[in-house]
Amino acid sequence: MSLATAAIIAAGRRMDRHGWVPATAGNLSVRLSPGLIAITRSGGHKGLLEPEDVIQVDLDGAPQRQGDRPSAETGLHCGIYRHFPEAGAVLHGHSVAVTVLSRLGGDAIRLSGYELLKAFPGLPTHDATITLPVFDNDQDIPRLQAAVGERWRQAEAVVPGYLIRGHGIYVWGADMPAALMRLEALEFMLACEMEQRRIA
Amino acid sequence: MSLATAAIIAAGRRMDRHGWVPATAGNLSVRLSPGLIAITRSGGHKGLLEPEDVIQVDLDGAPQRQGDRPSAETGLHCGIYRHFPEAGAVLHGHSVAVTVLSRLGGDAIRLSGYELLKAFPGLPTHDATITLPVFDNDQDIPRLQAAVGERWRQAEAVVPGYLIRGHGIYVWGADMPAALMRLEALEFMLACEMEQRRIA
Amino acid sequence: MSLATAAIIAAGRRMDRHGWVPATAGNLSVRLSPGLIAITRSGGHKGLLEPEDVIQVDLDGAPQRQGDRPSAETGLHCGIYRHFPEAGAVLHGHSVAVTVLSRLGGDAIRLSGYELLKAFPGLPTHDATITLPVFDNDQDIPRLQAAVGERWRQAEAVVPGYLIRGHGIYVWGADMPAALMRLEALEFMLACEMEQRRIA
Amino acid sequence: MSLATAAIIAAGRRMDRHGWVPATAGNLSVRLSPGLIAITRSGGHKGLLEPEDVIQVDLDGAPQRQGDRPSAETGLHCGIYRHFPEAGAVLHGHSVAVTVLSRLGGDAIRLSGYELLKAFPGLPTHDATITLPVFDNDQDIPRLQAAVGERWRQAEAVVPGYLIRGHGIYVWGADMPAALMRLEALEFMLACEMEQRRIA
Repeated sequence: MSLATAAIIAAGRRMDRHGWVPATAGNLSVRLSPGLIAITRSGGHKGLLEPEDVIQVDLDGAPQRQGDRPSAETGLHCGIYRHFPEAGAVLHGHSVAVTVLSRLGGDAIRLSGYELLKAFPGLPTHDATITLPVFDNDQDIPRLQAAVGERWRQAEAVVPGYLIRGHGIYVWGADMPAALMRLEALEFMLACEMEQRRIA
Repeated sequence: MSLATAAIIAAGRRMDRHGWVPATAGNLSVRLSPGLIAITRSGGHKGLLEPEDVIQVDLDGAPQRQGDRPSAETGLHCGIYRHFPEAGAVLHGHSVAVTVLSRLGGDAIRLSGYELLKAFPGLPTHDATITLPVFDNDQDIPRLQAAVGERWRQAEAVVPGYLIRGHGIYVWGADMPAALMRLEALEFMLACEMEQRRIA
Repeated sequence: MSLATAAIIAAGRRMDRHGWVPATAGNLSVRLSPGLIAITRSGGHKGLLEPEDVIQVDLDGAPQRQGDRPSAETGLHCGIYRHFPEAGAVLHGHSVAVTVLSRLGGDAIRLSGYELLKAFPGLPTHDATITLPVFDNDQDIPRLQAAVGERWRQAEAVVPGYLIRGHGIYVWGADMPAALMRLEALEFMLACEMEQRRIA
Repeated sequence: MSLATAAIIAAGRRMDRHGWVPATAGNLSVRLSPGLIAITRSGGHKGLLEPEDVIQVDLDGAPQRQGDRPSAETGLHCGIYRHFPEAGAVLHGHSVAVTVLSRLGGDAIRLSGYELLKAFPGLPTHDATITLPVFDNDQDIPRLQAAVGERWRQAEAVVPGYLIRGHGIYVWGADMPAALMRLEALEFMLACEMEQRRIA
């Protein structure tokens, strides 16, 4: 088992302990080389991954081995790797906080005043605000990726994450530890946002 | 230990980690052959199952070994296996979300706009709605099963799950992984429903 | 290690997984013989018990070995064992639900319409109601036990559990599995009660 | 591996199970001798510590080995060790309850009527109130420590804990078990406070 596969399996278990990969949902990937990605195959519970559940695709999402079926949302992982050469790992999960907050409407969620904002590039202080884009869900993955890419082009600074309404979150980083750290940070802050709305 | 028994024990542990089999409640079964079911015996904590806690019954719920006491709700498992020849596994759990939402009243819970709806047959897109029937609790299991069967007959399309008010959820699938996946999907969406009601 | 000690250690770990024995709070006991009780010693985290953390006391709470310091609330365990000869195990835990609901005021919490009510003696149907007494907290344990004993004498039927305001819950059963089952059932229903108050 | 390092690693794992060290946040330390502290290094996930993640600093926070990078908030740990000679361990974590409650505003959080208040010095009864100071977040650690020290000087009695707004909690005790116990007690009571605000 390669290091990349081991990292994906371990990350899947950690996400599962948080409840972020329910019902075979979610997917995880790592960039093996500039044009080669290791990604979880379609179906299968991401908290119970075995080495054979990790396959290889190119930057267009085409499987490198005949018969392999990559995750349905492979196009979103590849979109991140194509736009951001420094991206080394991408995580997609489903949490109750992400699902509920994104269903409240709007095309973005703003997070400010949290110490954990320091987990994001260009934000060395808690005094900043990050704006997480929220996209309407779409089963047409190329169309969804086109909408995501358009928002990236328009943004002054791209936050390494976005939400799909009623669906889940995409987060990336230079490697798997960085991606996991950003995912934990965002999920923590979104959980705080949800708790705040219950009280206020 | 047979594969079916191992699957039941593992599923019980997974449900227990979620808190879905409290206080010896809940029950799990697998179809061994068209007319033979492996099911958890009465009593005993479903998160701490041993091989001897899994017994065999026929489609009428009659134990195949003298002295075995099947779960009290065996009749509901058998009702599913009799109505749906393709059903290979049935899970019954108790969660706070199921208990609280079902006690709010009504004879159904509608779920729409969730990506996880794709876990259900005939629903390839998140744009659909599934309607989960809710039945009043009843200690007379044959009578309860009759009410459930009647609703199935009237329904245009049967969703592979239903709720019993103040009690729990029944979910089934072609095999244990499919049943577990649908249970996780429903519990996730019901948890979202409950969170939404706290905020709105 | 005796079976009783092993049962106490395992129950402590299970309660800890639920978060019911925070900060060295909580205590667990088992009746070894009509007049001899095995109980957790004072201090020490009940989720990390070792065999030496379980000591023996008589029905008046007097340690059987010189130098042993029983739990501060030993008198409440002994009160249960003295009043109820059939009691074989007593569990005391602290949960957020118990703490918050008891602080809302009142001298009882009523639970009705839950399937899990079947876990309690004389209640074969979900249609019943159990009334859990709630007592004001008191550092004078003999005085608190006197108040508890008085409520038992006045009650038509004694429910095998009670709450201490802002403090925790006491539950008992014929043996440790029975006590654990009743504790899980009560905590589950109290969690539902708390969720209901957030929504309604 | 020294006992102090083992204690730090185990405490980090326990805090991680609670979700209190998300995204490499949080830090843990133990006093090795009057002027020497073992503390977690900068970066790295505190739930996945290895022996090499624990370094040594003096009471001014200066690393004892060239090249070591102590946690960014080392100054706050050292502030506690300098002011309180009896302090033997300091824990810093991030929880949703701490983050949300501190963001509601105010310079203190009052806790009263909880049995778990007995975990704090000079408070042998549940009838007391403790006042947890809340400080505005500040990336200038010496300035933040100065504000904390000033509040300690003015206080009649110092509670061994304080909150940093939108950031986290600092707790200390004579040794790691004592610090962990106080952290669990405070987090439990703060979780109750948050639940209460949802209901009332």
